[in-house]
Amino acid sequence: MDGEFDLIRRYFRPLASHPGALGLADDAALIDPEPGTQIVVTSDTIVENIHFLQNDPPESVAHKLLGVNFSDIAAMGAEPLGYVLSLALPQSWAESQREAWLSGFAVGLSDMQIEVSAGLLGGDTVSSPGGLVLTVTAFGRVPSGRALQRSGARPGDIVFLTGTLGDAALGLAALQDRLTGLPEAVRTELVRRYRHPSPRIGVGPRLVGLASAAIDVSDGLVADLGHLCRASNVTAAVDANALPLSAAAQTALTAQPDLLPLILTGGDDYELAFTAPAQAHTALAAVTSASGVAITAIGEIEAALERADDPPVRVMRGRDPVILGAGGFQHFA
Amino acid sequence: MDGEFDLIRRYFRPLASHPGALGLADDAALIDPEPGTQIVVTSDTIVENIHFLQNDPPESVAHKLLGVNFSDIAAMGAEPLGYVLSLALPQSWAESQREAWLSGFAVGLSDMQIEVSAGLLGGDTVSSPGGLVLTVTAFGRVPSGRALQRSGARPGDIVFLTGTLGDAALGLAALQDRLTGLPEAVRTELVRRYRHPSPRIGVGPRLVGLASAAIDVSDGLVADLGHLCRASNVTAAVDANALPLSAAAQTALTAQPDLLPLILTGGDDYELAFTAPAQAHTALAAVTSASGVAITAIGEIEAALERADDPPVRVMRGRDPVILGAGGFQHFA
Repeated sequence: MDGEFDLIRRYFRPLASHPGALGLADDAALIDPEPGTQIVVTSDTIVENIHFLQNDPPESVAHKLLGVNFSDIAAMGAEPLGYVLSLALPQSWAESQREAWLSGFAVGLSDMQIEVSAGLLGGDTVSSPGGLVLTVTAFGRVPSGRALQRSGARPGDIVFLTGTLGDAALGLAALQDRLTGLPEAVRTELVRRYRHPSPRIGVGPRLVGLASAAIDVSDGLVADLGHLCRASNVTAAVDANALPLSAAAQTALTAQPDLLPLILTGGDDYELAFTAPAQAHTALAAVTSASGVAITAIGEIEAALERADDPPVRVMRGRDPVILGAGGFQHFA
Repeated sequence: MDGEFDLIRRYFRPLASHPGALGLADDAALIDPEPGTQIVVTSDTIVENIHFLQNDPPESVAHKLLGVNFSDIAAMGAEPLGYVLSLALPQSWAESQREAWLSGFAVGLSDMQIEVSAGLLGGDTVSSPGGLVLTVTAFGRVPSGRALQRSGARPGDIVFLTGTLGDAALGLAALQDRLTGLPEAVRTELVRRYRHPSPRIGVGPRLVGLASAAIDVSDGLVADLGHLCRASNVTAAVDANALPLSAAAQTALTAQPDLLPLILTGGDDYELAFTAPAQAHTALAAVTSASGVAITAIGEIEAALERADDPPVRVMRGRDPVILGAGGFQHFA
């Protein structure tokens, strides 16, 4: 890991215990592939005041940065291997500010490394005239030729969702004072889910051989399931009454029924949406038992669109279509 | 490759012909390891007004971004495999400005992809309230257990350098009007070397089994050879009269002899400095024949420092030490 700052070595070297990290002291790191596996690679960048709020705790920024990336690894059905980290830190920061931020950020990385079983392999640290820009490239491994992709959904497949939907978007709305009258415990739980995504690495690898297609729900269910549908040349009908909601989200929705479109289109949940034939139900119950993560059927895959401009995902509440408003999730800047 | 902009797909999909890139259309990319190899991973970030000038042509920014990264791959003795790209583009750019920049940037990427035989695998594109921040994570492969590292140099080894030294630093100085009275052809050649680094991927893999330690000279010869010495617990004596200089650098140095410290400590050359036993000379001549890249003996490895605070690299001109001034290379911001 190159980088101008001794602070980096102090905070990051303890995170790099993998022998392939070469102590962050060489030009590059080494990954040992296992025979019969492919390496899965994904990269996501998060930017201050675009993907996280300027005053978000640095621990939470670290959770989000690794969560985003390992959610993609899980969506490919891969097991986490490690990651490299690139930090552009504001030149304007005083030494004490940089140290305080890096200290908290390293704690968040460490927490998430334990959660996803992956270590720091290397990276780069630079100064920037602008705000924080953080990039992680994450690695996983999957049996060769078995990676889950977006393109395998077929009409008649069931649409499944891990965990619960909408908590992160509601948490962000709460932070932005766009939700009113919520009990404090509900607000706290929603904000926690916004700040600490849990990539479904316990589920993704277990879907290999079961799921026909998969994607992670980072830009909202409707947008991401739409990507899956387009890649598979199918459509999806989602049953709003079947959506898995946390107790906190249910409380918020009961108080404000007009939050349903936000739940359906809001981002940052990092759950997995996937498709599988109906007979996979029993095997999926075993995945839930093994992973501790709920898996809920929320809809069905139908035939391709007749007109390419039509939305590929329809959400129905009984016989009534749910109106989603103007398009999918946009980041808040 | 995620990203908000259709432009990205237009310009980047043609660069992603590797089947593992999955058409930039999925959550991640796939790398197929070959049996008996390790994957080498490196990541470098470059920032506008820190690592490149705001008005540098976008083709040149692309050359530099891939050059920096594949230089690290070469320094590990690895063959290039591919890369992922993360772009943070200024929110303030108008659509036409973004399109013009991306168009030139994609041309530069394409040129460099051909030069290093590596394709785009994936990445991310985001908006940023600040300036351009560009991160590449590059991949290579090396026979298992054979990667070149910084830590293998031994007293008595010869220090070698590929190509020529100082051209990029002189080119930057010329761009900044810090060189005077240079013939225009000399200035043009130095600026070209600053803007278009040539990572030594034809040399690095051929050094496996020959070199005892290697590093790329991105932060200046003295600083980077110092890193190698510290990792190997040795010192180095460099002969200033042996340094390989291009005709352009020789012209500049003859006109301004006080440029020698800049040549020794200036960054951005992306040559390889490596050590090998004296008997490797013959084998290295064959590497030069095969790669077309000159390899020059510039000094010798000596015993460890007695005092850890002393500089690990001494540069001598005959019997006189060359005074390098206050420390190694700093980026220009």
